[in-house]
Amino acid sequence: MIRFESDYLEGAHPQILNRLEETNFDQTAGYGNDPFCDSAREKIRGLCGGADVDVHFLVGGTQANFTVISAILRSYQGVLAAVTGHINVHETGAVEATGHKVLPLPSEDGKITAEQVQHAYDVHWNDADHEHIVQPGMVYISQPTENGTLYSRKELLALHDTCERLGIPLFLDGARLGYGLMAEPNTLTLADIAELTDVFYIGGTKVGALFGEAVVISNPVLKKDFRYLIKQHGGMLAKGRLLGIQFDTLFAGGLYFEISKHADRLAIRLREAFVKKGYGLRFDSYTNQQFPILPNSHIERLRKKYSFAFWEAVDDTHSAVRFCTSWATREESVDELIRDIEEL
Amino acid sequence: MIRFESDYLEGAHPQILNRLEETNFDQTAGYGNDPFCDSAREKIRGLCGGADVDVHFLVGGTQANFTVISAILRSYQGVLAAVTGHINVHETGAVEATGHKVLPLPSEDGKITAEQVQHAYDVHWNDADHEHIVQPGMVYISQPTENGTLYSRKELLALHDTCERLGIPLFLDGARLGYGLMAEPNTLTLADIAELTDVFYIGGTKVGALFGEAVVISNPVLKKDFRYLIKQHGGMLAKGRLLGIQFDTLFAGGLYFEISKHADRLAIRLREAFVKKGYGLRFDSYTNQQFPILPNSHIERLRKKYSFAFWEAVDDTHSAVRFCTSWATREESVDELIRDIEEL
Amino acid sequence: MIRFESDYLEGAHPQILNRLEETNFDQTAGYGNDPFCDSAREKIRGLCGGADVDVHFLVGGTQANFTVISAILRSYQGVLAAVTGHINVHETGAVEATGHKVLPLPSEDGKITAEQVQHAYDVHWNDADHEHIVQPGMVYISQPTENGTLYSRKELLALHDTCERLGIPLFLDGARLGYGLMAEPNTLTLADIAELTDVFYIGGTKVGALFGEAVVISNPVLKKDFRYLIKQHGGMLAKGRLLGIQFDTLFAGGLYFEISKHADRLAIRLREAFVKKGYGLRFDSYTNQQFPILPNSHIERLRKKYSFAFWEAVDDTHSAVRFCTSWATREESVDELIRDIEEL
Amino acid sequence: MIRFESDYLEGAHPQILNRLEETNFDQTAGYGNDPFCDSAREKIRGLCGGADVDVHFLVGGTQANFTVISAILRSYQGVLAAVTGHINVHETGAVEATGHKVLPLPSEDGKITAEQVQHAYDVHWNDADHEHIVQPGMVYISQPTENGTLYSRKELLALHDTCERLGIPLFLDGARLGYGLMAEPNTLTLADIAELTDVFYIGGTKVGALFGEAVVISNPVLKKDFRYLIKQHGGMLAKGRLLGIQFDTLFAGGLYFEISKHADRLAIRLREAFVKKGYGLRFDSYTNQQFPILPNSHIERLRKKYSFAFWEAVDDTHSAVRFCTSWATREESVDELIRDIEEL
Repeated sequence: MIRFESDYLEGAHPQILNRLEETNFDQTAGYGNDPFCDSAREKIRGLCGGADVDVHFLVGGTQANFTVISAILRSYQGVLAAVTGHINVHETGAVEATGHKVLPLPSEDGKITAEQVQHAYDVHWNDADHEHIVQPGMVYISQPTENGTLYSRKELLALHDTCERLGIPLFLDGARLGYGLMAEPNTLTLADIAELTDVFYIGGTKVGALFGEAVVISNPVLKKDFRYLIKQHGGMLAKGRLLGIQFDTLFAGGLYFEISKHADRLAIRLREAFVKKGYGLRFDSYTNQQFPILPNSHIERLRKKYSFAFWEAVDDTHSAVRFCTSWATREESVDELIRDIEEL
Repeated sequence: MIRFESDYLEGAHPQILNRLEETNFDQTAGYGNDPFCDSAREKIRGLCGGADVDVHFLVGGTQANFTVISAILRSYQGVLAAVTGHINVHETGAVEATGHKVLPLPSEDGKITAEQVQHAYDVHWNDADHEHIVQPGMVYISQPTENGTLYSRKELLALHDTCERLGIPLFLDGARLGYGLMAEPNTLTLADIAELTDVFYIGGTKVGALFGEAVVISNPVLKKDFRYLIKQHGGMLAKGRLLGIQFDTLFAGGLYFEISKHADRLAIRLREAFVKKGYGLRFDSYTNQQFPILPNSHIERLRKKYSFAFWEAVDDTHSAVRFCTSWATREESVDELIRDIEEL
Repeated sequence: MIRFESDYLEGAHPQILNRLEETNFDQTAGYGNDPFCDSAREKIRGLCGGADVDVHFLVGGTQANFTVISAILRSYQGVLAAVTGHINVHETGAVEATGHKVLPLPSEDGKITAEQVQHAYDVHWNDADHEHIVQPGMVYISQPTENGTLYSRKELLALHDTCERLGIPLFLDGARLGYGLMAEPNTLTLADIAELTDVFYIGGTKVGALFGEAVVISNPVLKKDFRYLIKQHGGMLAKGRLLGIQFDTLFAGGLYFEISKHADRLAIRLREAFVKKGYGLRFDSYTNQQFPILPNSHIERLRKKYSFAFWEAVDDTHSAVRFCTSWATREESVDELIRDIEEL
Repeated sequence: MIRFESDYLEGAHPQILNRLEETNFDQTAGYGNDPFCDSAREKIRGLCGGADVDVHFLVGGTQANFTVISAILRSYQGVLAAVTGHINVHETGAVEATGHKVLPLPSEDGKITAEQVQHAYDVHWNDADHEHIVQPGMVYISQPTENGTLYSRKELLALHDTCERLGIPLFLDGARLGYGLMAEPNTLTLADIAELTDVFYIGGTKVGALFGEAVVISNPVLKKDFRYLIKQHGGMLAKGRLLGIQFDTLFAGGLYFEISKHADRLAIRLREAFVKKGYGLRFDSYTNQQFPILPNSHIERLRKKYSFAFWEAVDDTHSAVRFCTSWATREESVDELIRDIEEL
């Protein structure tokens, strides 16, 4: 079985394992107060254009999401997000468990617009009974989205400007950020993202690390006491250096970008093979997730040799499925899959 | 200004005030452990067909809702409700503040069906990743709904059977229950509701009391330690007898039903006046809330003399509005409004 | 049975019932946006020396406590309180249910000192691992305390100065505030309290009202969006005017102070009778709660005719008990009890 | 600087790193549904005497604690724990953040007794107002305790019997369990612990792993839906196999026990050196944490070369400090420290 079902099928990039081994018996302080974390922070700050950002390393994405969101919101506020947003559908209500409603906005492709944010804000504040309604307190977006799509610089700028004007922070979930940054049509740099959001995170789990997400906070108000929040929410690793070592390795010499590019290139090869074969694409993705629409019979045939995710039924005889590539996907696996697609 | 904007514009039925005055200097134990509460409980049990139900008196509807819901659900479970349900839109995220997601089901008229519940359940449990998704843990319905519509006995029975089969409790919000019970097309008794739900409440605030809702629990599992929950959520009145006295008065000699019928009758008079005038009705309500669709210019004219609630724009020149009657609405006010409708 | 077990044994002062009756059919907007609430707010502002305070009316004390506390604290912060504080022992964990730890300080008489606050603050911030420990985020005190004792102006000023210097808000629970204000040794006015706390409340439930507490917010930061918090926590009464009418009556013509003084005077009569008889006092209270230490055999004899609360065993043969007077206690009841004390 | 300040100063046992490297490019399903986790579960079940336990792997100890505790308790219940328990002092209120009060019991050495549990239970249920008080809903103990002390088989049996009789689950925090199991005076096996608790966990973070704790559930009621809770609380690692691989390695061929024994042996060498030198011991620990009481001047001298933790001032000139050994502590470091102790 060759697996394309997710982008967390393997361990970590070998350079990371090597670095863990080299440093294994170094003795360091715990909880992220070690030289490896400091070094990784410095590199990330550099990539963010030298911005005065705080960088924290958390274990996983769900944790990063609910820790950031509960840090921002007051109890009666909710978070605006695409109805398809990860926090709304695949985190077992972790945000609600911190007391906050996810305020879903309709979305066809996983993205939301500045206009939608403005509209939600207006609807709330124009309601005479707004004190009876959850107040929009922040905006959550994913880059790339859960559907592989991307915000352009212009779109992110519009969201930023609207959020700033309305006084509600903008949070960008970058669980797959590398795959977004290296996508062919991408127009955003890490420095742009640091500038245009209040807080975002750089995903490690799905991009070469064993685990870990680097939360980057630009907004000074959000920086205060953030480490208390990490600890309280179970996100503070005793051996915090494990996260520092991983991110320090990923951001030394451009490894993070290189392995992301690898995954995107393979994904585009798959995309092109599907298109060439005449299949439609459920979402217009140039990142590491591809969502072709296949006849159900072809899906059955591919399943004999490949694992991939069912996404949704499109009609009685066709379904959208998801193929993921990653930093670890082998060229030969893609070659083989493309041959099999051609022969369907 | 004659007010039709809500059903909580006045104080309480005079019999309640008289009873409060008569008993004012009686000394009783606090927190609902007094003879007035016991007497009211007995009356309610009798109206529920003598069922072995626990009855608790809470101060208000939002409190009743989040106390009951948080009593039922485990932390990873959510509550299925119509997207228009009061808990989803008008309680400032009180349910989420207790840690639970409201799982909204589409609804045109405020009602949901047994089929929708079954479908939501199936979608959840058929998802391979269901542990990443909030588990449907109970069902919330309102009778009458926020749109004035009613579940028939057949519909409630179908919901009950489905919930029972799936092992998820059914909770009925009866903030306006009296107006539902006395509506002309109603097919449900209090005894039916006690039998077909796991827990429900009988609204007092909107039906003749100063304030207060009587929560009725049929399901033995939910009875355990419920008083702790009331206290913890701020719903336990020190002078609990105030609630007992009110419900004891409302359920002595049928007062609750009589005053509900009064409101429904006046609402139907309004309904007929709107229909006769050629206006459409946004919802097909036979209860105390009426939702005519009026030309915006006519709305402006009526606003000079009457207060009522804007509901939603229907097209560029028409809007749905809401007129409420209540136990306290005067016949003359309705007469006057009808005359003015006829002259529009 | 003559009852002295609590100060919420009866209904409300007759003037309140009269006012409810007079206004019963007035139509008003809901949720505290009515002229009665506005009038009561004006009176309370006046009594607070004309300070620019926000005034909100909540249903009960537990609700007032957890609504205020959760409004102030960030998630990783806790509230410093006497170990005997109501929030620490008698609210079924309502504060914890909003996510916050009560940080108990030792107390012999129910009071805490500015030094204790400073010490707790220092211990926290001097700990190298303070991010692993709940951060002291506010101070909660009761006036009078749960033991009937009183903070002097000097003591409250010291707490205020310390809290202000440390940047942590000071909250005063005034569930029995009237009985404190009118106590013979009291040195604080409402205006003082408004000046020296960030937020406090004036208890109605135990001082003449049917129910209700008036939360008074001085600190501008805490004012923002407070109505959302009331609604979310189930504290916003639909017929909010009921609270406005009650407080407007209590603060018209000094009724609140007059009835409080009545209770204090009767309590001191009891205190003197106990002392004259040679009994010790568990707490040195000059307010409406008295805590004599009686031989257990005498307790048994009094129980045949009077109800009062067991407080704690003092030794094998003596116990402290609590007798409460209130606005409603009759002089004759106290006369009778004193005669029976003398004859023990 | 030679560091003895904690037991999480280094990475992981080399066998674990080797195993991570060997398996790095294996493709597996995520979230703990992989053969490595299954194999580790099987080994743990075997060590638990073949008991029918559920085994889940979580990232860290704070997470394990609040996930288990919030899984057990209903909202109005609290957890009985030693006042020194980790959940009460060093988790930034993580338990309170899930809505529950920690109910602290006095403790001199970190342990609590069956009698204390019984007493707390009796005090609660004998209080006429128990519905106003947090209900004791479970018991939390640590083995070894935060002070290095151990429950004997007899003591744990007494706790078990009391908890079972009272119907409140018993949870054992085994963050340092290996060091307890291999301590010379220990009388408990893993199988005993599985039998005598409802749920416990086997610490990896402090005993040879990079990170990770294995939660073992015996009580059938607690097994239901536990994976939802892990996910919701951010404890479900995408690459769950990383945890499986680590525990599978630790429990293959007795590695976990062997490295624990190593740490305990070195700790006893330190203990004996301190005692021989005439220092007192703050706690009578036979596990990897030692708490000698030293003159402050000697502490200053040792600090020049060694890092260790300040525990508490004992008098004006003496303090208790903590030295930790671990699986990774080198014999030479201990030799050197002992020489320096002798020369103090």
